[in-house]
Amino acid sequence: MKMSMNVGIIGYGNLGRGVELAVNAAADMELKAVFTRRDPSSLKIASENVPVVNIKEVGDWADKLDVVILCGGSATDLPVQTPEYAKLFNVVDSFDTHARIPEHFANVDAAAKDGGNCAVISVGWDPGLFSLARIYSNAVLPEGQDYTFWGRGVSQGHSDAIRRISGVKNAKQYTVPVQAALDAVRSGSNPELTTRDKHERECFVVLEEGADAAGIENEIKTMPNYFADYNTTVHFIDEAEFARDHQGMAHGGFVIRSGKTGAQKENNELIEFQLKLDSNPEFTGSVLTAYARAVVRLNKEGKAGCMTAFDIAPAYLSPLSGEDLRAHLL
Amino acid sequence: MKMSMNVGIIGYGNLGRGVELAVNAAADMELKAVFTRRDPSSLKIASENVPVVNIKEVGDWADKLDVVILCGGSATDLPVQTPEYAKLFNVVDSFDTHARIPEHFANVDAAAKDGGNCAVISVGWDPGLFSLARIYSNAVLPEGQDYTFWGRGVSQGHSDAIRRISGVKNAKQYTVPVQAALDAVRSGSNPELTTRDKHERECFVVLEEGADAAGIENEIKTMPNYFADYNTTVHFIDEAEFARDHQGMAHGGFVIRSGKTGAQKENNELIEFQLKLDSNPEFTGSVLTAYARAVVRLNKEGKAGCMTAFDIAPAYLSPLSGEDLRAHLL
Repeated sequence: MKMSMNVGIIGYGNLGRGVELAVNAAADMELKAVFTRRDPSSLKIASENVPVVNIKEVGDWADKLDVVILCGGSATDLPVQTPEYAKLFNVVDSFDTHARIPEHFANVDAAAKDGGNCAVISVGWDPGLFSLARIYSNAVLPEGQDYTFWGRGVSQGHSDAIRRISGVKNAKQYTVPVQAALDAVRSGSNPELTTRDKHERECFVVLEEGADAAGIENEIKTMPNYFADYNTTVHFIDEAEFARDHQGMAHGGFVIRSGKTGAQKENNELIEFQLKLDSNPEFTGSVLTAYARAVVRLNKEGKAGCMTAFDIAPAYLSPLSGEDLRAHLL
Repeated sequence: MKMSMNVGIIGYGNLGRGVELAVNAAADMELKAVFTRRDPSSLKIASENVPVVNIKEVGDWADKLDVVILCGGSATDLPVQTPEYAKLFNVVDSFDTHARIPEHFANVDAAAKDGGNCAVISVGWDPGLFSLARIYSNAVLPEGQDYTFWGRGVSQGHSDAIRRISGVKNAKQYTVPVQAALDAVRSGSNPELTTRDKHERECFVVLEEGADAAGIENEIKTMPNYFADYNTTVHFIDEAEFARDHQGMAHGGFVIRSGKTGAQKENNELIEFQLKLDSNPEFTGSVLTAYARAVVRLNKEGKAGCMTAFDIAPAYLSPLSGEDLRAHLL
C-alpha cells in the first residue's frame, strides 16, 4: 500500500488554486487544509470536504501535515512566511526575486534546520525548470553562451506600471520574444543581444473617459526600466474587448545554451528547452506539487535544511519506483 | 585549492575521443590514461604526455584513478566491461540497449557495491538528457502524452543493414523527424502517431560496379523492421560525393510532453526539449564527463552502487559551488 502525503496550502490566489488542482490530481497526495489570512467563512475553495483555516491556527496543524506549499507573493509574503513555516513543516515555495535568493536561502535554511524540516525554495518555471535547463546544459557544455527568452505572456509588474498612469483604467502588458533573435541564437552564431533585441512589449490599454491617448502612449513608451529600453506597441481598446481577450494566463519561454566542442571549438551543440503554457499558475502549481513530494521523501530520509531544484535528484519528484522509471522513462 | 580528479578512458573510438576532449576542457579533471585492446604502440591519441595502456594492465591503476569512463559499444563491450571495472573503479557508461537496462543495472549494481564504488549507467543524450526531459516533464504533468523524435542524424544500425545488401559498396542512413508530426504535437492535440507518421528514412548508397540499382532500392524499402514501416528515400551517389558529404556526425532530436491541467483538463501545457548537435560523439562524451564528476563526488560522500541520471541531483554535475549556482543559474 502506498502512503498518502498530507498536504496543506497557504494562500489561495491563482497559484493556490493551481496547486490545489495538482495535489488533487496526485494519487499519492491528499489535500488536508487551505490556510488563509481572509475570513475563512468568506473563502469558497474548489475541493469539497477540505477545511479552510485561519492562518493564525496553522500551528495546530504541525503534526497533521507532511508538507505545506506556500502560495504567497515573493515581494512581501514569502520572505516572511517561508522561514516562519519552515520551523513547523516541510515547505515548498516559488520565491522568484532573483537578487534576494541568497538571503532567502539562508533564512529558510536556518529555520528548516531548527525545525528538523526540509524546504525547497524557488521552484516553478523560472526559477525552477528553466534553472534546471541552465545547470544541466552548462555542466555538459562548459564552453558556450546562455540565452533566456520569456513569453509570449503577461508581465504583472509591467501591467501594474501602466495602470498607475493617470487616465488609464485597465491594462495588460505582454512580453514577446523577438523571432529574429531566437533564430540568430539557434543558428549557433552566439550573438551578443541587447535588451531591445531580445524582447518586445505589447500593451493593451483601456482609457478613462476623456484621457489623452497620445500623451499616455508616450508616457508608457518612455518609462525608464519598464519600457524605454524596448520596442513597445500600445493598443487602446474598450472594456468589452479587454474583458473578452485579455483574461488569459498563458505564458512560456525558451532557455537555449549554444555551446562549442571540438579541438578547435569547431562544432556547435545546441540545447533548447521550451515551455508553452496555457495556464501559468496551474503549471507553476504543478511544479510546486512535484517538489512537495520530493521534500517529504528527503525529510523521511533524515535530511533537513533548505534546498533548490539543483540539490534534488529527479527521481524524488516522481511517484514511480526506480524500476518503473528505468523501464519506462530512461 | 580545488582537487583535480584523475580520469581514465577505456576505449578510443569516436566516443573515446569525444570524452578526451571534454576531460581536457574541464579545469577540475586530469586525463591520466587511455586503455585499449589494441597494441598500445599502434594508437596515437590527441593528448600529449598521457600514456596509452593495454587494457590487461588496468588493474594496476586501481589506486591511481578517481573515475573511469567506458567508451565501448552497448552490444558486446559494456555488458561485460561495466560490471568488471565497477569492481575496481567509479565508472560511467552510455549503455543504450533499452531492453537490457534492468539486467545491466543489476549486474553493475552488484559489482559496484562489491568494490565500494559508484557507477552511473546509460548517460548520453538518449538515454541521458532525453530521459531527464521525460522524468521532469512527467513528474510535473502527470496527465499527458510523451513524444520523442530523433534526427536529423545517422543511424549506425540502419546504415549497417544497407551495407549488408549484396551490390552495396557503402551507405549512410539518416533518420529524419517528420515536420507535420512535430507541428501536430506542438499544437497540443495529442495525436496518435504511427511509426510512419513520426520519422522518414533517407539513404545515400554507393553501388558496386554493375549492381542492380532498382533491385537494391526495392530491397532497402521493403526490409522488415528497418525500413518497411517507414517512408524511405534512396539516393544513389558516387564515392566522391559520399566522401565529401556524408562523413559528418551530426544528430539531434526532440522530447515533447504535451500535458493537460485544469478542472476540466482544459489547458494545454507543452514542455519541449531539443538537441541540435554537430558532433554526436563529442556531445555524448561531454555528458559522460559531467556525470564522471558526479560519481566521484557521490563516492566521496560514501555512496556505492549503480545509479542512473534519475538518481543524481544536478548540482553534482557542475564544477560550481552551491552559492555560485544559486547566484548565476537559478
